[in-house]
Parts: sequence; structure tokens; C-alpha cells
Amino acid sequence: MAQSLSIQKLLDEFERLPGIGPKSAQRIVYWLLNAQPNDANRLAQAIIEVKETVHFCKQCFNYAEDDLCQFCKDSERDASLICVVSEPRDVLAIEKTGEFSGLYHVLGGAISPIDGIGPDDLTIKDLLGRLATDEVKEVLLATNPNVEGETTAIYLSKIIKPLGVRCTRLASGLPVGGDLEFADEVTLGRAIESRREL
Amino acid sequence: MAQSLSIQKLLDEFERLPGIGPKSAQRIVYWLLNAQPNDANRLAQAIIEVKETVHFCKQCFNYAEDDLCQFCKDSERDASLICVVSEPRDVLAIEKTGEFSGLYHVLGGAISPIDGIGPDDLTIKDLLGRLATDEVKEVLLATNPNVEGETTAIYLSKIIKPLGVRCTRLASGLPVGGDLEFADEVTLGRAIESRREL
Repeated sequence: MAQSLSIQKLLDEFERLPGIGPKSAQRIVYWLLNAQPNDANRLAQAIIEVKETVHFCKQCFNYAEDDLCQFCKDSERDASLICVVSEPRDVLAIEKTGEFSGLYHVLGGAISPIDGIGPDDLTIKDLLGRLATDEVKEVLLATNPNVEGETTAIYLSKIIKPLGVRCTRLASGLPVGGDLEFADEVTLGRAIESRREL
Repeated sequence: MAQSLSIQKLLDEFERLPGIGPKSAQRIVYWLLNAQPNDANRLAQAIIEVKETVHFCKQCFNYAEDDLCQFCKDSERDASLICVVSEPRDVLAIEKTGEFSGLYHVLGGAISPIDGIGPDDLTIKDLLGRLATDEVKEVLLATNPNVEGETTAIYLSKIIKPLGVRCTRLASGLPVGGDLEFADEVTLGRAIESRREL
């Protein structure tokens, strides 16, 4: 072994993180060794703190520091519109667009028989509970545009529509700034099918 | 702000690491949020531990957990040969080759007038102290093959040679497995100049 034990241990821990290979781990560890003790400890404390303070929002299952997340707490958000996503990171992606002002509901995954994930493994019951009040007028199904996400969206629309709540789905089509030539057939086909009036 | 405060803090800390951009930081933070508390805390503890236990070897200035690093402690290493490098990470690179069995000396940088780094800012005095005993027969100058590294190597050879110690330098030339076509002129020129008998 070419390293001291505690350096090797830190290398191993960094290599377990997603997207970090042996070279990146080495670069980070030597940077930390060279950093001021305070700088390195701030990272350690931030990791500990996030695991202590962050849990799931009681209403929408997004990450939250209090009982409710910042969106569920915010009385200025449109409570008649709920955007349903698979994971908390999808909330972030949608917030970044600045196009959505409603509330969220995080399913905690998508229906996937192959992985043994059925409707009961997701927070669908809690979503239906939120729809039981008359407040919600529309549910935007923003699960991923892949097999599992589509399956989940179709499943949800079938049980939500009979409740008299409007169900919508994110549009599929060509990515903005993309090249027609490089689009896959399914996406291009969907873009033609969903063509809009100019 | 689209995140809870402690998530944002952790994102900021990860983005400060070398080679980690906003997207990688986000991926890692969501992975940590999703991980078992123990998994996340092991990383935090490893960071704290490394900063507490690792310091510089008193003899060679490599990273060490005790007074001496594992190489200086190892009586099976060849103490008549010292490899001089700029940074502790260079020790690791040389160890990985398996071609070197001597001791090391880490300068802590290279001479660079532009950055205001002169010979007195490096551990050159300590190196000369090690050469004062008659034990050392050869010093391999393994600073980087760039302007600062070459300058440092030339400077060191000028003060070490008069002590009757042999001074050697890493060979420059084409990288093994490389392509002649893509080699820069300086490297190719050096490879011709240092051509060897077959």
C-alpha cells in the first residue's frame, strides 16, 4: 500500500460517490490534505448536518428541514395545481425552469414490475389523500418520459381522472436547440404527432 | 432558492472541490441524502480523521501519520538513493510504477519567481541536511518536466553535485503507447536528443 491508512480510507469513501473515479478521488483527497483544517471540516460538518436535519416533507415527500418543505409552507404557491415527480431532484429541475408555481408531490420512484416496485411502494395513497379535498384542480404528471415513468403516469391518470381532477402530462418532442437530424425516431414521431398550430 | 438551507450549504462545499461542477455536486448530494446515515457519516468521519492524523513526515515531508512516513520508517528501502519530488502526490505516482525502492524528499513546490516561490520556500535545507551524512549516493530529481520543475532540478543539481553526490533526472521522451504524429515538437526533439542504443 502506497498511502497512509487514513488517506486510503478517505480515498475509498470518495470513490464510492457517484461519478467519482480513482483519479478524481485522489485529486480531491490531496486537495483536502492541502486545505486549511477549517475548510475540510466544513465539508465534513455539512455532510453530518444534512443527514441530521433533512427528512421528507409530511405532505409532498420532497426533502425538508421542517415538517413541511418550503413549497408546501409557501402560501403564495398555487395549491390548486400539483406536479407529481418521481424523485426530489426532479423538483429542483422543475423549479429551475421558473415555469411552475404550484405544489409538488414526490412519488419516491416509478412503477417498475421488473424491479418489483408496484403502486403500493410509492406515495400514491398520500397523493390521493391530498386530492380528497376539493382544492386541487389539476395534477401535472411529470414522471420521466421512459417506460417506468409513462407507466406510472398512465396508472395515475386512470385513478385520478374519475375524481374529477384534470390530469396533464409534460409534452414530449424535440429538445430546444437540438438538431432534427440527431433526434431518435420515437422522439421525432412524438413531435410530429403533438405538432402545434402556429 | 430552490433547496433547503443545509442542502444548499453541502452543495456549495462540494462545488469547491477540484473537478466537481454544479451537476456533479448535485448528483453527489442527492446520493448522500438517499444513503444510509452511516454511509454518509463514514465519509464525514474520514475527512475529519485525515485532517487530525495526517501531517508531514519529519524527514522527507511526505504525508505521514507518525513522526516518519512509511517509507522513511521502512528499513528495507534503499537509503542511499533519494527521489526528490515537488508534491506528496508525486510520491504516489512514482510508487505506483514499482520501479523505485529508495527514499523520498518532498520539496513542497517548485522554484517559480512569477509566483514568488524561491529556494527558501522549499524544503531544500532539510534535503541538504540529509545529504550531510555519507549514506546518500544518488539523488534522483523527479520534479515536473515543465519550466518550474526544470529550474528547480537545475538549481538542485548545482548545489548537490559539489557535495560528491550523483544527481540524476527523469528521462524525457515519447510517452509509452503514444503516437509520434501527436507528440509536440519539444518532446519529440528531446526524444531524438536522448536516443538510446538498441
